[in-house]
Amino acid sequence: MRTSIATVCLSGSLEEKMSACAQAGFDGIEVFEPDLVASDLTPEEIRARAERLGLTLDLYQPFRDFEGVTEELLEANLRRAEARFQVMARLGIDTILVCSNVATATIDSDDVSAAQLRRLGDLAAGYGVRIAFEALAWGRYVSDYRRAWRIVQLADHPNVGTCLDSFHILSRGHDPAGIEEIDGAKIFFLQLADAPELSMDVLSWSRHHRLFPGEGEFDLGAFLAHVLRTGYDGPVSLEVFNDTFRQTASGTTAVQAHRSLFTLADETARRFPDAAGPSTVPDLQEPAGVDFVEIQAEDTRDVEEALEQLGFSFRGQHRTKRVRLWSAGGARIVLNEQYARGDEPHLSGLGLLYGDVETAEQRISALDVPRMPRPMQAGEQRLPAFATPHGPQLFLAEAPAGGGEPGWVEEFEHGFAPEDGSHLGAFDHVNLVSSWETHDETVHFYGSVLGFEKGPVNQVASPHGLVRSRVVRTADGTVRLPFNVLPAVHEQKTEHVALTSDNVLAVAHRARKRGMRFLPVPANYYDDVRARFDLDDRYVDLLRSHQVLYDRDGRGEFLHFYTRRIGGVFFEVVERIGGYDGYGADNAPVRLAAQSRLDDAAGR
Amino acid sequence: MRTSIATVCLSGSLEEKMSACAQAGFDGIEVFEPDLVASDLTPEEIRARAERLGLTLDLYQPFRDFEGVTEELLEANLRRAEARFQVMARLGIDTILVCSNVATATIDSDDVSAAQLRRLGDLAAGYGVRIAFEALAWGRYVSDYRRAWRIVQLADHPNVGTCLDSFHILSRGHDPAGIEEIDGAKIFFLQLADAPELSMDVLSWSRHHRLFPGEGEFDLGAFLAHVLRTGYDGPVSLEVFNDTFRQTASGTTAVQAHRSLFTLADETARRFPDAAGPSTVPDLQEPAGVDFVEIQAEDTRDVEEALEQLGFSFRGQHRTKRVRLWSAGGARIVLNEQYARGDEPHLSGLGLLYGDVETAEQRISALDVPRMPRPMQAGEQRLPAFATPHGPQLFLAEAPAGGGEPGWVEEFEHGFAPEDGSHLGAFDHVNLVSSWETHDETVHFYGSVLGFEKGPVNQVASPHGLVRSRVVRTADGTVRLPFNVLPAVHEQKTEHVALTSDNVLAVAHRARKRGMRFLPVPANYYDDVRARFDLDDRYVDLLRSHQVLYDRDGRGEFLHFYTRRIGGVFFEVVERIGGYDGYGADNAPVRLAAQSRLDDAAGR
Repeated sequence: MRTSIATVCLSGSLEEKMSACAQAGFDGIEVFEPDLVASDLTPEEIRARAERLGLTLDLYQPFRDFEGVTEELLEANLRRAEARFQVMARLGIDTILVCSNVATATIDSDDVSAAQLRRLGDLAAGYGVRIAFEALAWGRYVSDYRRAWRIVQLADHPNVGTCLDSFHILSRGHDPAGIEEIDGAKIFFLQLADAPELSMDVLSWSRHHRLFPGEGEFDLGAFLAHVLRTGYDGPVSLEVFNDTFRQTASGTTAVQAHRSLFTLADETARRFPDAAGPSTVPDLQEPAGVDFVEIQAEDTRDVEEALEQLGFSFRGQHRTKRVRLWSAGGARIVLNEQYARGDEPHLSGLGLLYGDVETAEQRISALDVPRMPRPMQAGEQRLPAFATPHGPQLFLAEAPAGGGEPGWVEEFEHGFAPEDGSHLGAFDHVNLVSSWETHDETVHFYGSVLGFEKGPVNQVASPHGLVRSRVVRTADGTVRLPFNVLPAVHEQKTEHVALTSDNVLAVAHRARKRGMRFLPVPANYYDDVRARFDLDDRYVDLLRSHQVLYDRDGRGEFLHFYTRRIGGVFFEVVERIGGYDGYGADNAPVRLAAQSRLDDAAGR
Repeated sequence: MRTSIATVCLSGSLEEKMSACAQAGFDGIEVFEPDLVASDLTPEEIRARAERLGLTLDLYQPFRDFEGVTEELLEANLRRAEARFQVMARLGIDTILVCSNVATATIDSDDVSAAQLRRLGDLAAGYGVRIAFEALAWGRYVSDYRRAWRIVQLADHPNVGTCLDSFHILSRGHDPAGIEEIDGAKIFFLQLADAPELSMDVLSWSRHHRLFPGEGEFDLGAFLAHVLRTGYDGPVSLEVFNDTFRQTASGTTAVQAHRSLFTLADETARRFPDAAGPSTVPDLQEPAGVDFVEIQAEDTRDVEEALEQLGFSFRGQHRTKRVRLWSAGGARIVLNEQYARGDEPHLSGLGLLYGDVETAEQRISALDVPRMPRPMQAGEQRLPAFATPHGPQLFLAEAPAGGGEPGWVEEFEHGFAPEDGSHLGAFDHVNLVSSWETHDETVHFYGSVLGFEKGPVNQVASPHGLVRSRVVRTADGTVRLPFNVLPAVHEQKTEHVALTSDNVLAVAHRARKRGMRFLPVPANYYDDVRARFDLDDRYVDLLRSHQVLYDRDGRGEFLHFYTRRIGGVFFEVVERIGGYDGYGADNAPVRLAAQSRLDDAAGR
């Protein structure tokens, strides 16, 4: 599959964009005309630079408002087009995107449009140029790819074909199966874009909210399969208008874009081997659970105190590194004081258990995810480590056959056996933060690279703005990672680790006896809980005396409490009763307000 | 008019919100239940604090999903309600907002809903509470205020009335004239919110994009007049859910909110004196033009050099201040080196000419706009100065009768007479920057306080993201102020002053001879202009040799050039031919890319 990307997807100057695309591994680019116009490189210089970078110039775009016009306007449009063909000759580009007329069409006739495209094809032939005619979703008369194809058939000119763009087809709800009726040799170009489900006018949606494949809600795997079945073998290109990508560094965005094409190819090959052939990427594999969470700080003593209060046991010091291990039930927390000069406690790593680490590692690596170096001594277990878009490292560990603890635990010495009766089970969820720039890429990483399910987007009010939240999780719920996007200003980055319990009140009771200071929950909250859920007074008093919060839905109940923040982390203990599957979202504003009060009191 | 505001409009803790509202001059507040629940103040403490601040607690809100339910659910809902009535008694609030049922209604019957509200009314009466029933725009059965009113009539209970919310009525396109058929004594509450025109689902629109009155597109003056004609004399309250206000300092937002109610009252009084009585605010008055632009810097020599190259004349040094005046045609630029230690040149003030300065000053002052102190010596002309939401100060100057220069020019000495044949006329526009936090307030300031017209929102691509742009201008176009909102990251704040010319090529020619270095325009731009507008080669060469840009629309042509940036300002000279009324928006990306190249070259 030849990969390509439109320069409009990225920020920066045309030179910067070209370098970023080459670096990320794209085979070619689409030259977006305004990028050319604003560049001080001549077309010849751009061509030479692309050659040096090993990039093909696949498409010149867009040419607007051509067909369905009066004869007089047609003449002017042909002159406009010829000037572009001359620039294309200088650039060495042989295909131009012609979008269906939005502004100047006055003749709603396939025959007229076809005849006009035929004249354009004649003109283009003289320059060796091919016309890729595309139906814009908001074209005045031509807004359906099937109609564009009919017009191309009527034009019946070797230099006139069609361009398919997933956004224009799927945003209108048009059935992409009809693509298979198109002659693959007449599909002159293919553009892919994903998008979130939004109900807004299709033009704004298109111009500001497109996403790379796999980051939105379109079924692009099925779409690509339809196109491949036509025999199309041209570039698979990305055209993604997005306000965020326009602002973020072009290098990062290009890597993200390239990975999205690879994961799409993988998904398409798995689901539609008849169309795409077998995947070249190793199989997806669901992790068996969260192995450990790593917290890094110059001084981890406050974290250790909290873990002890919660019922964790100290399991030992690493043989060779300034790393300590605590555990409770199946939850292991690694405290790392290396490379952490001046750092407050923060979440620095997440270990996932895999039945077949090697295949998982090969898959992640094949999908362009950068590896992280990890110094190792002889006799230590190898834990492959990768960078994540949101910050902490991802480690892959072998799930021990028949349960029990993974082998690397034996590298820790001078510790104690796990405490009995901790009432703690395993990691319930790890609540992480991604910035607004990296959020979609993060969700894509867990979704398309690791195969997690993506939940809906929620919003929670904090005193400093709305927190957007989205959960990625394995299908069986063993691994759950809610990701928060904080408001632009004010909010301190805080992540937290939630542990399951079969008796959250007992855990809270023990923690209090051991001196833990809980996150204070206001009395008004308990008045509200009593009223909202019609609970009896004694039960509410019990919750209140333990500072335990409550939620209920149609399927069950949820009890949970929070520790205070230690640097940028805190802990939560949760008890799920019945089929409750949420995270106590209604309680999150209460937590955020309480944390904010503590910050204000501390003058933070 | 008693003013009120829902606490959900503001950021921060409930205490912070209350203080901000009192400070801004609100008479009362609506207590948003989640703010209460998350607060560690008891209801009694909140009540006492409100009393001390001089705020009334006008409304408890919201109570959801009450009516149209089965008998069993009704019982539970009545228990839920009673718990709230108890909290309200502690708070001393006598009115509760009951929103039409969204989630649990199963009975679509006005009679059933009315009977259920009547039972709620009986229960409420025992606590001295009034029920204000409101149709949510997305209510399951009740989504129209006329239906909510019908149900209230059927309920026929002294403690059951209706609440009107402009958003829920106008967002659905319902005719607000029907409000006049409601008995004013049965309107228990009034909430106002404006909103931009957006085509998105009404729930998202409501939850994230509401605006204060005058900042959006709703006709709230007419809406308020309908309500006042019913005899309603309760609070006029703001309920504005907005992602920006949730993040910005509550003090600033509260002042902005309060001003929006005052300007709305003024507008309503002017347009509908039968309903609102006469306005208490002095009349609106259109300015006669831009008097001067002030640029401040520690060292203004680079700006003076550019002004001289453009054809400006040095008009003198101020008698007592480190301020110098340059002019060309009717354009005066004041260079201020006072209080500017370490500052790069930046736009610091804007003077507007008024026929009646005193009335204009009284109006602006009456609308809560903060005055700026301005030291004055004896014999100097008084120029009232105000703070603007976007930064630079606004000065008001007396428009000289019969044209000519304003009196304050005589305070400058040792200058020269204006140069003849400058080909410069006056200020065409002053292009300003507002932050995303202050943009809506800025547009409201020029619109509702000063009476400018608000243009549509445009977007321009820069190498670092999209620049949002909106023009405010006087009806006759004498004062035009385009406001840009820069992308969140990277873009340097740059404002510019555009001057009219009757011969932009001559001005460019002279400037070049005097040594000006223009903003370089790439050759590709001229190839594109030639093709796009079908211009002849010699004309394009002429433009190119002067680095002059070109635009054309159905009404005329536009020629313009830019100087390089000097600190945070630059100059533009424009020539409007025929009826061209735009700003060369298609050329803005070319300018932004060229500026970005210069920045990169300079290592900025």
